[in-house]
Amino acid sequence: MTDKRVYNFAAGPSTLPVEVLKEAQKEMLNYKGSGMSVMEMSHRSSAYAEIFDDTKATLKRVMNIPDNYDILFLHGGATQAFSAIALNLMQKGRADYVVTGNFANKAAKEATKFGDVHIAYDGKDNNYTHIPTQDELDIRDDIDYVHICENNTIFGTEWNYIPDTKGAPLVSDMSSDILSRPVDVSKYGVIYAGAQKNMGIAGLGVIIIRHDLVKPHKENIPVLCEYDTMVKKDSMYNTPPTFAIYMLGLVCHWIEDNGGLEAMAKRNEKKAKLLQDYLDSSDFYNYPTEKGSRSNMNVSYTTPSKELDAKFVKESIEAGMTNLKGHRLVGGIRASIYNAMTYEGVEYLVNFMKKFEAENK
Amino acid sequence: MTDKRVYNFAAGPSTLPVEVLKEAQKEMLNYKGSGMSVMEMSHRSSAYAEIFDDTKATLKRVMNIPDNYDILFLHGGATQAFSAIALNLMQKGRADYVVTGNFANKAAKEATKFGDVHIAYDGKDNNYTHIPTQDELDIRDDIDYVHICENNTIFGTEWNYIPDTKGAPLVSDMSSDILSRPVDVSKYGVIYAGAQKNMGIAGLGVIIIRHDLVKPHKENIPVLCEYDTMVKKDSMYNTPPTFAIYMLGLVCHWIEDNGGLEAMAKRNEKKAKLLQDYLDSSDFYNYPTEKGSRSNMNVSYTTPSKELDAKFVKESIEAGMTNLKGHRLVGGIRASIYNAMTYEGVEYLVNFMKKFEAENK
Repeated sequence: MTDKRVYNFAAGPSTLPVEVLKEAQKEMLNYKGSGMSVMEMSHRSSAYAEIFDDTKATLKRVMNIPDNYDILFLHGGATQAFSAIALNLMQKGRADYVVTGNFANKAAKEATKFGDVHIAYDGKDNNYTHIPTQDELDIRDDIDYVHICENNTIFGTEWNYIPDTKGAPLVSDMSSDILSRPVDVSKYGVIYAGAQKNMGIAGLGVIIIRHDLVKPHKENIPVLCEYDTMVKKDSMYNTPPTFAIYMLGLVCHWIEDNGGLEAMAKRNEKKAKLLQDYLDSSDFYNYPTEKGSRSNMNVSYTTPSKELDAKFVKESIEAGMTNLKGHRLVGGIRASIYNAMTYEGVEYLVNFMKKFEAENK
Repeated sequence: MTDKRVYNFAAGPSTLPVEVLKEAQKEMLNYKGSGMSVMEMSHRSSAYAEIFDDTKATLKRVMNIPDNYDILFLHGGATQAFSAIALNLMQKGRADYVVTGNFANKAAKEATKFGDVHIAYDGKDNNYTHIPTQDELDIRDDIDYVHICENNTIFGTEWNYIPDTKGAPLVSDMSSDILSRPVDVSKYGVIYAGAQKNMGIAGLGVIIIRHDLVKPHKENIPVLCEYDTMVKKDSMYNTPPTFAIYMLGLVCHWIEDNGGLEAMAKRNEKKAKLLQDYLDSSDFYNYPTEKGSRSNMNVSYTTPSKELDAKFVKESIEAGMTNLKGHRLVGGIRASIYNAMTYEGVEYLVNFMKKFEAENK
């Protein structure tokens, strides 16, 4: 047993700002003199309403969300949203999905249950190392929406432009890069995310939806998928994941206290550049992700062999780092360097990598 | 600001054992020397797998769950289960619901979306102060299941027997009395509960389902409602609500350390009797719930007038108690006295009630 914290490169759930954890720890038995933990608060109480409203207002401020968007805090993370987005937005029953990785593919597959889904681009032929250009997108006319996955956690790619959708609303799964940089929310119909990366803890899905896209729900769908009901009830048709919402509030305040999304973006670029520049300069590590498609949140790479990958992972753990093993779909190494990962953490990783390269070249 | 904790009589989310909160607080930045918070653990990591497996094993031990039952830890609490139970279990498309209160009614309404629902009993004519006897139940032949709500949070009633269902599986929403007393799980087809009362925190639904009732899922339902998928993936099709599951584990260990469900039942009976006996002896308070139908978890009563109800609530807050205001559907006072409410807490409430009676009679 030790008090020392590790450098945690997990893809999600993932490392949280230590200041946020300390705040939650401090308030665990008694939130601001209320005499109880946030976990123990009735979701209908005024004490909790303050936390809920403040979380929503802070997120709105941090992301600069226009007034004509509803913000929902729902159960089930992004996966429930895969279903609910299709169930709510497929008014004509037609949507186009851009498949740039595993979760983009899962979202598309889920949507095929509920309507006519066209794959506007499929990245599988290039092992998902590339984000399509506008020219590569085959978007149909007269569809309900175009769905993209903004950042692909497993393959380490990220959209660096907002695609033209021929006027259809753009729906983006931002689970793994939301709050990492400023985005122009007004360019999107829906932005959604599971909270367990940059937004806090698992068990919460955040849905930011342009109000005109909230239509009367279809008959006979599960009530937690009815976005109009959830908007009407301000996410409280049933007991929401109250503690996860509180944690999101703490994270949003932490971002604000640290300069907002502009500052996060600078910090994230600096961190990613340190690691990516070293990978590009090395002839030991292989970093296949195409330039221009690279994510500042997840960096996936390999050593020269599977044996060395395994050795790398083992020795990284001994050196006080965790969760650097790549996803089972791609193997190798993956460093997830979300907002809460410090520059020092990435520096520590790069120094370890240099040493590992020298010892194993 | 004060360090003093209040007596929290909230119906859910509700008071937690202080020992559990202290444990969570202690481990908040570094779980057992892992160098990270449970919140930060990858759900696929061995560190988290230990917590997950231990939680399941401890719940199984505490509730004495037979081996032919699957235990699922899912998103969306009981409300998602309202939909999923109907979607998964309605193989013939016919189910009977016993409506003994608000949530029983919500469950029945949700199920009508997915099949032919018959109300086997409706308690609305007697203001839900009564749990039906076996003779009062109109259960059809050849149905998929009978659904009951074991404890009715708002109206303060609780089943004190297991109904005969003519051979159909019995499905019970135990959200507000699970873990409060021993139950013979083998008599049920499905037991389910939102975790935010006796099981921990909001955002987790626990489903205990007899394995033969897990059938291949219907086509085109939201993936998080597919119980066969969730069983196959051991609740990890997607990231589960990891921290809520950890909290459930802490609560289950606390129950075990305090004598298990037999001891909880004794403790709960003693607490409820103290309050109920006083209510019955008083001609100031009105406690309409029928004897034999009374809940040991929620006690709903009134003073002689709405004005005095409001005064009671106001003065109870000044005296260091919270959330005694009755549900908006019934008004009056409600004391929720789950496992984590101490005998001292109930004693404190009863003493306050005596004083209030003397001052306002």
